[in-house]
Amino acid sequence: MVVAEIRIELKPGVADPEGQNTKKALELLGFKGIRSVRSIKFFEITLDVPRNEAAKACEEMCRKLLANPVIQRYRIDLK
Amino acid sequence: MVVAEIRIELKPGVADPEGQNTKKALELLGFKGIRSVRSIKFFEITLDVPRNEAAKACEEMCRKLLANPVIQRYRIDLK
Repeated sequence: MVVAEIRIELKPGVADPEGQNTKKALELLGFKGIRSVRSIKFFEITLDVPRNEAAKACEEMCRKLLANPVIQRYRIDLK
Repeated sequence: MVVAEIRIELKPGVADPEGQNTKKALELLGFKGIRSVRSIKFFEITLDVPRNEAAKACEEMCRKLLANPVIQRYRIDLK
């Protein structure tokens, strides 16, 4: 059994409205000194396949479904 | 400058429809051996405050805005 953690985030330079609005909301609540807020998506996928196959499968999952390669980059960590 | 990574996930036992539907979609695409998919939310917050204040501020941000303590738990990592 392999647990894969897939982190999907916007590429540098791509606008992150969710992060920007979260920053604004935190500032309205009185929090000071916030330089930036970035929103990131995680998937924790548990797989019943050998470790070497899991890495390949996760890579394919990102390309086919989980990430949008035009605006997002992803990182896969196997545990 | 402190970078705080805040990981917000559903408490065990709380239904995760996003994760379940992602699992279904991956299976429809032909991926085998997926035991579970969990969706997790991350915020990467860059703060211009001392480290000890940052930890306290992030804890308060989670309680006041970022997380729903009824169904979610959170973890804060300062980098």
